[in-house]
Amino acid sequence: MNKKMTVYIIAKMLGVEGAVLLIPAIVAFMYHEKSGIYFLIVGAVLALIYLLLGRKVPENKVIYAKEGLVIVGSAWVLWSLFGALPFFLSGSIPNYIDAFFETVSGFTTTGSTILTNIESLPKGMAFWRSLTHWIGGMGVLVFVMVLTSLDDENSMHLMRAEVPGPEADKLVPKARGTAKILYTMYLILTAAEVVFLMLGGMNLYDALLHSFSTAGTGGFSNRNASVAYYNSAYIDGVITVFMILFGVNFNLYFLLKLKQWKDVVKNEELKGYFGIIAAAVIAITVNISGIYGSLLTAFRYASFQVASIITTTGFCTADFNLWPEFSKTILLSIMVIGACAGSTGGGIKVSRFLILLKSIKQEVKKLLHPKAVTIVKVNGKRVGSDVMRSVYVYFICYILIMMASILVVSLNNFDFSTNFSAVLTTLNNVGPGISLVGPVENFYKFSWLSKLVFCMDMLLGRLEIFPYLLLFSPGLWRRRF
Amino acid sequence: MNKKMTVYIIAKMLGVEGAVLLIPAIVAFMYHEKSGIYFLIVGAVLALIYLLLGRKVPENKVIYAKEGLVIVGSAWVLWSLFGALPFFLSGSIPNYIDAFFETVSGFTTTGSTILTNIESLPKGMAFWRSLTHWIGGMGVLVFVMVLTSLDDENSMHLMRAEVPGPEADKLVPKARGTAKILYTMYLILTAAEVVFLMLGGMNLYDALLHSFSTAGTGGFSNRNASVAYYNSAYIDGVITVFMILFGVNFNLYFLLKLKQWKDVVKNEELKGYFGIIAAAVIAITVNISGIYGSLLTAFRYASFQVASIITTTGFCTADFNLWPEFSKTILLSIMVIGACAGSTGGGIKVSRFLILLKSIKQEVKKLLHPKAVTIVKVNGKRVGSDVMRSVYVYFICYILIMMASILVVSLNNFDFSTNFSAVLTTLNNVGPGISLVGPVENFYKFSWLSKLVFCMDMLLGRLEIFPYLLLFSPGLWRRRF
Repeated sequence: MNKKMTVYIIAKMLGVEGAVLLIPAIVAFMYHEKSGIYFLIVGAVLALIYLLLGRKVPENKVIYAKEGLVIVGSAWVLWSLFGALPFFLSGSIPNYIDAFFETVSGFTTTGSTILTNIESLPKGMAFWRSLTHWIGGMGVLVFVMVLTSLDDENSMHLMRAEVPGPEADKLVPKARGTAKILYTMYLILTAAEVVFLMLGGMNLYDALLHSFSTAGTGGFSNRNASVAYYNSAYIDGVITVFMILFGVNFNLYFLLKLKQWKDVVKNEELKGYFGIIAAAVIAITVNISGIYGSLLTAFRYASFQVASIITTTGFCTADFNLWPEFSKTILLSIMVIGACAGSTGGGIKVSRFLILLKSIKQEVKKLLHPKAVTIVKVNGKRVGSDVMRSVYVYFICYILIMMASILVVSLNNFDFSTNFSAVLTTLNNVGPGISLVGPVENFYKFSWLSKLVFCMDMLLGRLEIFPYLLLFSPGLWRRRF
Repeated sequence: MNKKMTVYIIAKMLGVEGAVLLIPAIVAFMYHEKSGIYFLIVGAVLALIYLLLGRKVPENKVIYAKEGLVIVGSAWVLWSLFGALPFFLSGSIPNYIDAFFETVSGFTTTGSTILTNIESLPKGMAFWRSLTHWIGGMGVLVFVMVLTSLDDENSMHLMRAEVPGPEADKLVPKARGTAKILYTMYLILTAAEVVFLMLGGMNLYDALLHSFSTAGTGGFSNRNASVAYYNSAYIDGVITVFMILFGVNFNLYFLLKLKQWKDVVKNEELKGYFGIIAAAVIAITVNISGIYGSLLTAFRYASFQVASIITTTGFCTADFNLWPEFSKTILLSIMVIGACAGSTGGGIKVSRFLILLKSIKQEVKKLLHPKAVTIVKVNGKRVGSDVMRSVYVYFICYILIMMASILVVSLNNFDFSTNFSAVLTTLNNVGPGISLVGPVENFYKFSWLSKLVFCMDMLLGRLEIFPYLLLFSPGLWRRRF
């Protein structure tokens, strides 16, 4: 492994985090909050690390997929470890493990919180909390790639390790170019949401924070009651639409820009995504209509919650923990399915589900015609056997990690629905679960061990397991090559 | 598809069921129960079907894997549909869907019950109920194969479709020979358990019924309190040991007979099976020791319940629904893992888990060395890519079926733990779950729709999905070949 290059890139990334911390510092000082100083202190430490390790380019610059995974895996942990410091040092979150949980939840765009009173956070701290969603959504490394220069061969290995979904496509020949296009679209969509929210009467600060959270499909709100605080059908509607938009593969927006309408309309994942949303909204609307008196009101709450959960955002306008079990189970199911690959959303991804379903179909075909050649196609393109195998193994790891996590978390002796949905919601980067981690609850009640398990699950979910799987391999540490 | 041969074999199998019904009829008459007449009536109907369709051997006797799956899939449903009739006609179970549920639960060796007062069943009915476990354990078709003559090529396709695990081995060149060896060992072990139970003071009738249930890893008891009724450490111990023995791959007993000790000791699945049992017993013993006062008593209850759940038997000596969540979660986990392939137990099987874990290891290796040739070996033998793929697809189907079933069952509006564990326990052919389907509860409370879903899950679990997956394929029905 090219250790020097690995350390160099990680140091560079920490330098970028140091620079980013200036933003919440400015916000804090605008609101005359003294706690802003802690952003500057942590920023200075990160700058120092960058100056010591991230300035001199190593001679051997070549890295492979392996290094890409190690860099991404470590970078996310380090960004979270340092990003948690301002919360901890300022006393906003007095326990460091809680602060780490909150930061991991931010960067991984989960949105689960240990805070019992969010509105007591200083403005600067709440801003940083939501900003982590925005940066984590498109990817910490992709973000760094836009801001600094890394040569292209290296960058692609980093992007592949970080961008969600079974395959990472380049939009343009150069990885950095791709990253820039993605971030431009991301920025435009976020800005559009800010404008629409302000048109609904939200102030700039709240609009920015909720747009960051929507864009990253995170779910942190600066209001204890989440989006329900605004009690506005217009704001619910705007956020519903933008959540769904941020759950779409960003490559499709690029295709729209290139006016390749047909490829967008024919996209199987997109059709699957909208199909699942429609089915879930209809089923839940009917199921909860008795509670809300009218189908229209039921539709408003059903569509918001479905959009929030399938995109793994996690905003709430209703306490779905009080809904009938059927609706709750639908929400748990779409939590697992998640959004589209190449979006900011989490979960297993619609495209992986399509591949899994199609491979079942092929296996049945093979039973009928043992000698038939079976090929799985998505969007008319053949899915290679390597991708297939990695999707299978991903799914297996996903289930095994879930089982192991539930086992450890059960030591708290909370009920099974709590343990199960807490693991599901963190592993899929959603935010709320059911029972004791329902929409009006929080994660404060868990032991430090459980909180660390949740942090691990959030990271595993966001980076789609493989970077961390690699860290457990003795081969990575033993050999030199 | 060779429809004539398919119908011929199925008719033959129904004839065998008709003959088998004479046994509970005799038991009923021995106890002077008039309800014994219903066994004879149903037996007569089955004999008629056999005489009409199962006597004339078709000219084209060749069948393939496809027909094997269709025959097995249909045979299990038909045996259950007819097997339920005596319960229904005699009024012992007044609702036919309930009677069908009970019979499917019997043949699939699940052991979940809809009966609220088991002890009120006539002796003949209770005997038939437990006998279905014994026949279903080793396989309805394997049973028929022992009793009637089918030529060997055909038989192997049937055996492959019915014997649990990723691969079916022949012990001797001929399938019927293999079936006979398996049934001989099965009979000897069952008889041994009857003797040991009677030495503990159990009467012959109870000893027979509990041995049938242990042998098939079913779990039906003729006592409302299950094995807890006897309140005897000796009986608990005997049943614990025999449950574990019936969860071992029967091929290993054959190897023992051939004195190939080394192959048995080295068997990876066996080591995994005992390793999981030991870990689970230790963890639960420590976790529940506070409840039972002494480690020894805790060990007695922990080992019985672990053996009962991992082998998917489902007998109970303690209401583990009252145990701490950690112990309950361990039980739910080993429920999924299940027993060894080629045993009478259900679940995903230890060997499949081994293959899944090893394939993760290979995938990590592939990440480190993209060009490395990766091979998964179990017991020193390479696992072929076809078997690998079928294990992957099996696991995926398993999880998807679970999700879909939980969704439908949630319509009852019971809590999530109930729905989740009810599906888990039926799909893995275990018996009890937690919450409202805990050890002292039953399945009577569910809607008829849920009961049919559970029947489907029990059959899918017992036949390991593929036979029924095939039935959903339009290709099977459309084409002639």
